[in-house]
Amino acid sequence: MSKEKVILAYSGGLDTSVILKWLANKGFEVIAYVADVGQKEDFDYIEKKAYATGASKVYIEDLKNELVKDYVIPALKANTIYEGTYLLGTSLARPIIAKRHVEIAKKEGTKYVAHGATGKGNDQVRFEFGYYMNMPDVKIISPWKDAEFLSEFEGRSDMLAYAEKYNIPVKASLKKPYSEDANLIHISHEAGILEDAGSRCPEDVFSYTVSPQDAPDKETILAIDFVDGAPVKVTNETTGESCQDPLDMINYLNKVGHDNAIGRVDMVENRFVGIKSRGVYETPGCDILWKAHHNLEGLCMDKEAMHLRDMLSPKYAELIYNGLWGSAEFNMLSSLFETSQKNVTGTAKVALYKGNVINAGLFSDKSLYNQELGSMDKAGGYHPLDCKGFININAIRLMAFAHREGQI
Amino acid sequence: MSKEKVILAYSGGLDTSVILKWLANKGFEVIAYVADVGQKEDFDYIEKKAYATGASKVYIEDLKNELVKDYVIPALKANTIYEGTYLLGTSLARPIIAKRHVEIAKKEGTKYVAHGATGKGNDQVRFEFGYYMNMPDVKIISPWKDAEFLSEFEGRSDMLAYAEKYNIPVKASLKKPYSEDANLIHISHEAGILEDAGSRCPEDVFSYTVSPQDAPDKETILAIDFVDGAPVKVTNETTGESCQDPLDMINYLNKVGHDNAIGRVDMVENRFVGIKSRGVYETPGCDILWKAHHNLEGLCMDKEAMHLRDMLSPKYAELIYNGLWGSAEFNMLSSLFETSQKNVTGTAKVALYKGNVINAGLFSDKSLYNQELGSMDKAGGYHPLDCKGFININAIRLMAFAHREGQI
Amino acid sequence: MSKEKVILAYSGGLDTSVILKWLANKGFEVIAYVADVGQKEDFDYIEKKAYATGASKVYIEDLKNELVKDYVIPALKANTIYEGTYLLGTSLARPIIAKRHVEIAKKEGTKYVAHGATGKGNDQVRFEFGYYMNMPDVKIISPWKDAEFLSEFEGRSDMLAYAEKYNIPVKASLKKPYSEDANLIHISHEAGILEDAGSRCPEDVFSYTVSPQDAPDKETILAIDFVDGAPVKVTNETTGESCQDPLDMINYLNKVGHDNAIGRVDMVENRFVGIKSRGVYETPGCDILWKAHHNLEGLCMDKEAMHLRDMLSPKYAELIYNGLWGSAEFNMLSSLFETSQKNVTGTAKVALYKGNVINAGLFSDKSLYNQELGSMDKAGGYHPLDCKGFININAIRLMAFAHREGQI
Amino acid sequence: MSKEKVILAYSGGLDTSVILKWLANKGFEVIAYVADVGQKEDFDYIEKKAYATGASKVYIEDLKNELVKDYVIPALKANTIYEGTYLLGTSLARPIIAKRHVEIAKKEGTKYVAHGATGKGNDQVRFEFGYYMNMPDVKIISPWKDAEFLSEFEGRSDMLAYAEKYNIPVKASLKKPYSEDANLIHISHEAGILEDAGSRCPEDVFSYTVSPQDAPDKETILAIDFVDGAPVKVTNETTGESCQDPLDMINYLNKVGHDNAIGRVDMVENRFVGIKSRGVYETPGCDILWKAHHNLEGLCMDKEAMHLRDMLSPKYAELIYNGLWGSAEFNMLSSLFETSQKNVTGTAKVALYKGNVINAGLFSDKSLYNQELGSMDKAGGYHPLDCKGFININAIRLMAFAHREGQI
Repeated sequence: MSKEKVILAYSGGLDTSVILKWLANKGFEVIAYVADVGQKEDFDYIEKKAYATGASKVYIEDLKNELVKDYVIPALKANTIYEGTYLLGTSLARPIIAKRHVEIAKKEGTKYVAHGATGKGNDQVRFEFGYYMNMPDVKIISPWKDAEFLSEFEGRSDMLAYAEKYNIPVKASLKKPYSEDANLIHISHEAGILEDAGSRCPEDVFSYTVSPQDAPDKETILAIDFVDGAPVKVTNETTGESCQDPLDMINYLNKVGHDNAIGRVDMVENRFVGIKSRGVYETPGCDILWKAHHNLEGLCMDKEAMHLRDMLSPKYAELIYNGLWGSAEFNMLSSLFETSQKNVTGTAKVALYKGNVINAGLFSDKSLYNQELGSMDKAGGYHPLDCKGFININAIRLMAFAHREGQI
Repeated sequence: MSKEKVILAYSGGLDTSVILKWLANKGFEVIAYVADVGQKEDFDYIEKKAYATGASKVYIEDLKNELVKDYVIPALKANTIYEGTYLLGTSLARPIIAKRHVEIAKKEGTKYVAHGATGKGNDQVRFEFGYYMNMPDVKIISPWKDAEFLSEFEGRSDMLAYAEKYNIPVKASLKKPYSEDANLIHISHEAGILEDAGSRCPEDVFSYTVSPQDAPDKETILAIDFVDGAPVKVTNETTGESCQDPLDMINYLNKVGHDNAIGRVDMVENRFVGIKSRGVYETPGCDILWKAHHNLEGLCMDKEAMHLRDMLSPKYAELIYNGLWGSAEFNMLSSLFETSQKNVTGTAKVALYKGNVINAGLFSDKSLYNQELGSMDKAGGYHPLDCKGFININAIRLMAFAHREGQI
Repeated sequence: MSKEKVILAYSGGLDTSVILKWLANKGFEVIAYVADVGQKEDFDYIEKKAYATGASKVYIEDLKNELVKDYVIPALKANTIYEGTYLLGTSLARPIIAKRHVEIAKKEGTKYVAHGATGKGNDQVRFEFGYYMNMPDVKIISPWKDAEFLSEFEGRSDMLAYAEKYNIPVKASLKKPYSEDANLIHISHEAGILEDAGSRCPEDVFSYTVSPQDAPDKETILAIDFVDGAPVKVTNETTGESCQDPLDMINYLNKVGHDNAIGRVDMVENRFVGIKSRGVYETPGCDILWKAHHNLEGLCMDKEAMHLRDMLSPKYAELIYNGLWGSAEFNMLSSLFETSQKNVTGTAKVALYKGNVINAGLFSDKSLYNQELGSMDKAGGYHPLDCKGFININAIRLMAFAHREGQI
Repeated sequence: MSKEKVILAYSGGLDTSVILKWLANKGFEVIAYVADVGQKEDFDYIEKKAYATGASKVYIEDLKNELVKDYVIPALKANTIYEGTYLLGTSLARPIIAKRHVEIAKKEGTKYVAHGATGKGNDQVRFEFGYYMNMPDVKIISPWKDAEFLSEFEGRSDMLAYAEKYNIPVKASLKKPYSEDANLIHISHEAGILEDAGSRCPEDVFSYTVSPQDAPDKETILAIDFVDGAPVKVTNETTGESCQDPLDMINYLNKVGHDNAIGRVDMVENRFVGIKSRGVYETPGCDILWKAHHNLEGLCMDKEAMHLRDMLSPKYAELIYNGLWGSAEFNMLSSLFETSQKNVTGTAKVALYKGNVINAGLFSDKSLYNQELGSMDKAGGYHPLDCKGFININAIRLMAFAHREGQI
């Protein structure tokens, strides 16, 4: 009888290598799935290691273009920011990883998927919701929430022993005293020495950005063109470089963002599971993109549209953070934000300088800003007397309320 | 028969001086009211000028302490930010100016108040709503929305001619090519040369902050203590200075903020009257305060409390911006935000460096952050298997939805 | 020189007849525009009267089908109800009337439009916003906000005198002691004797419904089929009658609603202009439709989708009430509600009885209700132990909060 | 060694009797706690049965007054309605039952509490959240989510066998083919034969109301007085009866509501755990109260206050439904709603007739309704020309948007 297949999200690290072997030892045919979302890895090495550890097949999937187009840009269009601070760098990559995961399961004709996310974090939730939403009858093996696995592996030393026993290679490099997750838009650092909220994050933690102190003492000027809220071109006015492909733009913005110390975040955030945790993030390119886009919205977005959006963006961020990309309520909000971006079209210039992203000029053929009308020196078609009526009518209810409250 | 009294909001500038004389010429007894909200002015000179221009009485009212305690701190507690960017520096000072204005009117036994705000901006609305809410039967004279006044004064030259005719002193100093509004938390710059959204704001416009380039190349470390969301002490850990009085804290934060290039904003915003305008703001002290406070909220504020707050803050900002401080809906939200701040108590350290306000450590006895529980290395009372149930139950509706959508 | 054309929204009543003649006397070529939105009128008579009063041309426009498809059904899909009570019968007809108004103006090559809505109500706002949104450079003549017209016509007697002078026929019938607005979904009654909120609305005011007392003492059972939130068939199970055309369905539901005393509302509402007013409405067909649709949503709509919708419906109602159909923020919400209705597909049965609309059974192939899963007698795939984890994880933040609050 | 005490929420029914014995058999000293929230029960009999089944002590707690004052009235003030339909009759009683439960545990010096709510429903969640929020270190025994208990009791026959074995008396009366929960504001019916959403609820299910058909063919007129949103007096104008005590008012309204067929609901709702279920509810008194209160709000509540409230009420209903009474976000909203009710003071008359609650007149000294101002016949201080300005200013952004959209 043939073995049951299981598709394992595999990173090549100690945890997922042990899990791979453990699943094989339990009698599964293990197919390793490696999602390339822009993390800097030696995928050839990972592939070899997967086979060496017992995988029957290895999928290395390049999800980078799709990640930018179908996840990062929609988040940008909604001005999505979690708890006022975090650009959701990890969260945005999770749904596409989960989606491809079950696509492979379907292709391989199995219901079984496995992942190595811990039982305390957000990623387990995001992965599993993603599985359920793309294959409702999925069977999920989540070792870090599996009583048998947990009793077998109580700590890192059990993992190392297991690796030694089964000849799983363990990187000689010292483990960092905190954990990281990287992709094409960001790197996160958390846990370990970062868990003390009272201690400032050490400078050597950062890898996607230089420090403001180390950034050059001169500005870099970028011009970013948008059409209906999506970036279509990035031009470095200082060097003359430019690019237009979505992934190229992100990569380029990461590079200049890195050099200019843009996009560091250090916060205590709320995980979906109700635990607070301290996270340090670097999102250089998207930080520039988000700010340039928001500046341009000032020019092109209707007032009430923006105010409605501002009320609903936090909800969208919450949904993405919680792994609810693709849920009914997510789809509703996506429609709303997509509509909100029509004609957010034009160019936002920004000056980068030692951590600052400074508005350096806004240009649009679709502008709702009427310089004449806004002018304090010209009428521009405005009739000041109209405003008397505007105020008086608005004041009707205020006067009634004030009068009534004064009765007491 | 005695003349009718009118209380005029008086700044000592050309406009309100002309208005003072114009009101006197119309037969009013004009009482000048000068609100000291922290703008840097020679109040003695203004007082003398008011009398010289025809005022029968002059009130110079120091509103600074009240402004900080009753307006700035409540806005901080709600994390109030207009259109994601603007800390409402002008808006926050308007309701208290209007409130004292009608208090003086009541004391002087008149219903007449006058102000010199233009007919295109937000301030006219804020003042007049403030009058109506504090004295519903007020009679407002608003020359820049008065047909007679507007036909008499078509431009600045008419004002200057009128001033010359009536011996109103006009400052020799050259008028800046844009307009400004200053108070103890901010200065705004708009109009004139700033109306071109494509032109970067010239460096010499800024006065409350040095440029990031001119800021020192070393960090300043502050520790700010909060109790229930309100600041109670500011300590400069770099110099050892500290202060505790609310107004002193704001002033001190402005000073270090100024020196470190903190709190510049350059945006196209939406005025209440539906016109977009370009505004440049400097709010050095409050920018530090808002960020430190928000960092501490990460530690002390419940997740769902924060998410609800994040949804409602934009509405509160809109109300304040629109001059609706004190309206029924404003009072409702104030109650909500006040409740939200209970136990946002502790210390937020920040490092200031060339425009950056960097989290440098968070401390609280009222923390909801449980380092053990949040830890990826320790269980801290957490049961990973619980999360299996958590995910499975949450997935019930997601699976039903996915299954149904897949039918089509 | 040819006269300037003006398109006047004309009802055939005293007010718009006087306005027609007044505009003609001012030198305009007056083109009368009569919108047929289902009010019961003798359009031939109105046409003749318009010509007799001086119109150069008369447009009688049948907007009924478009009103149902493009306005009533989208409002249904959003479960739109103003202030928890009012189904927006008048508001929904206004944007289409305004839209066609300016279409005629464009066709006739003029910028001038005129209407006879009063200066205190909502309809003036709805019409004029509709004009501005469909023809931004429109020139609006609104006599009831025109100083010259207002000084000429201070009361009804001036209108009657003017009518007599110019041979404008005035209906012999006695004017009702309150005002009405009718269309294919509703009739409103307000003003006059209804202004006393302490007096119960007299029974003879109602015309679209019999009283509960006069309704038959037996139930009528209807089955209404919906596809993606829109009604597609109404079947009277008591009589066997059925219909499928949108307008026919509304008309039929009005008939059975009328007979069963469905859809009366008597409320004090808030006008956009900040005045409270007392309105009495009859909306028999839509009341049935709204309730049947909402019942079916229980079966077919995802929980979080519904809860998000419930939060935003009041805003949509406010926008429609305020005449903001077609604004940027309206379009955003329309996208959201449209998405929310996917698969709200099935049949809702209701029993009508003396003012009651009673759920009599729900059926859907797209149901998210899983009888096995919902059952208290069967597991249906549900694992009770999962709920332990669900509760424990959700309780983490509650315990932390409770623990912290208990410290004080 | 003394036994560990456990406080068991005890109803006297089969389930909690079996649980009582099962806990005793496991070695606990079982203290029975019976919450009197207005359900019609023979509490003496329940007490005797508890002792007979093995309880060491029995608490019969009368929570009725507190339930009305601290739970029902705050919900009324927020106009709380779940999913547009359900008045939360069960949900409102849960937090007080849980609160007293742990108060008894504290008094008895134990951490152990137990309840008999099923593992699929909402009540388990509401109870357990209530425990955690009032005693974070509580130890909860929830047999219907306990693997051992579940394996021992797979169905009703196991329970009956256990009861027989341990001489637990079982009521001779036939079990209804659906389950019920009753308290002083409502009775719910669900499960069993009601699980088929396509079948109309049989008439004999209802017990708190007669059918509309059986209600008298004449109106009953009530006048309900409110102060700051809370009822203070109910007068039956038809009979002259009146009452003022909060609990008396609820009881009286239930009686007249019962007689007039008021307050039946039949819906498919969303449980917190993500399962849809069909519920039939009767809430006669509160249905009258909610509607009368809402009518009065029309008279006394500011427009924007009401619109903000209408947006947030669904969230409050969700929190109460989900058992989150007392959470941080609940407290925030409670503050907001409490503030919103200031001066919702006056009298609402309603006519009850065969299921209908009809507005029969509104009276208030704190009214914001100004009959003169609202009048279409009188100016009442209103200046129609002001509205021209009001519309023109509001139209500025609409015209800009329309103009821009037309470009495409």
